[in-house]
Amino acid sequence: MAHHTHRLSVQTSGKGFYDFTTQVSSWVRGLGIGNGLLTLFIQHTSASLLIQENADPDVVYDLERFFSRFAPEDSRLYKHTTEGPDDMPAHIRAAVTPVQLSIPIVEGRLALGTWQGIYVFEHRTHPHRRHVVMHATGDLV
Amino acid sequence: MAHHTHRLSVQTSGKGFYDFTTQVSSWVRGLGIGNGLLTLFIQHTSASLLIQENADPDVVYDLERFFSRFAPEDSRLYKHTTEGPDDMPAHIRAAVTPVQLSIPIVEGRLALGTWQGIYVFEHRTHPHRRHVVMHATGDLV
Amino acid sequence: MAHHTHRLSVQTSGKGFYDFTTQVSSWVRGLGIGNGLLTLFIQHTSASLLIQENADPDVVYDLERFFSRFAPEDSRLYKHTTEGPDDMPAHIRAAVTPVQLSIPIVEGRLALGTWQGIYVFEHRTHPHRRHVVMHATGDLV
Repeated sequence: MAHHTHRLSVQTSGKGFYDFTTQVSSWVRGLGIGNGLLTLFIQHTSASLLIQENADPDVVYDLERFFSRFAPEDSRLYKHTTEGPDDMPAHIRAAVTPVQLSIPIVEGRLALGTWQGIYVFEHRTHPHRRHVVMHATGDLV
Repeated sequence: MAHHTHRLSVQTSGKGFYDFTTQVSSWVRGLGIGNGLLTLFIQHTSASLLIQENADPDVVYDLERFFSRFAPEDSRLYKHTTEGPDDMPAHIRAAVTPVQLSIPIVEGRLALGTWQGIYVFEHRTHPHRRHVVMHATGDLV
Repeated sequence: MAHHTHRLSVQTSGKGFYDFTTQVSSWVRGLGIGNGLLTLFIQHTSASLLIQENADPDVVYDLERFFSRFAPEDSRLYKHTTEGPDDMPAHIRAAVTPVQLSIPIVEGRLALGTWQGIYVFEHRTHPHRRHVVMHATGDLV
């Protein structure tokens, strides 16, 4: 029942959703855990982790559009403007979406629902390399 | 110090809050854990988990009203409309509220504050059977 | 690999952000854990936990201003008004920001990114003493 940790990277290319479910579930499968818990933690304050529908791509398209209206790039609204017009909106978006997700492992598999994918939700305009630390612990099979 | 998992269901009947604190704490009590950690994970992207005040029912009434304004059922705002006018608003509400909650177990009890209840927060109009996977681990008493 | 729990308090003096990263990391360091997981849980429904940028103080200033517009103190919007004009907005703010955070411990240190600080995000106007329960488990070094 050791505690496993691993850091992975996700390359982004502008605001929106980057599905990395496969990377996560491969790592978990390799640990040989039966029942346990996986935790994902993103080491940034201008990108988030989100579990969302992975069936119709219009869902994440509409989510991105919604968050652009929710936290507009309007410098009159913010004092913190030195890192560009998209930076303070990015912090706002990151405040209302998760920095961390924990998912039970049941009989060797992540307990995701049928339509749930795991995404990095990028809030900045320019490309970024995002770091996600994973932790898992559980009973070995 | 084994890892325990269990899946429970919560029946909903329209948008709003469904308190299932009792079901959760009964399961935890039965495990005989002294200090440990409980994690709840909902297997859906159109319903959430939320800890909120359980004293005055007006609080969850006002929360539901707030979220209806926050993500309006207005099909002109969304591309994803095939699953009904309440579906895309449901995904938006689920993006800003938790898919997962972890609560410490201290001396055999969930470390909830005096006024904290655990709710399924339903975002769809029609009745749904919502699945929540629970994970717990800890030192036995 | 025991499970450790501890409750700490953070004194607030009005809406805004209170950095308590040092208190958290001192407690974790004292446990002698190599790899593991820390979980923080706030026992309130009108204050939250948030990881945000700790470099430029304008970021948390702008966040507080944003949330004041997001959930305005306007009694015409709410039924729950008996606890003061700031109480229902506080519940709304707490619904969209975390009650709980889990952070991996890697080689004895919290896996925070360079610019990430851990804050109590106070949503009420008057001073409060906020209670945060910490849980940690991991492999001893």
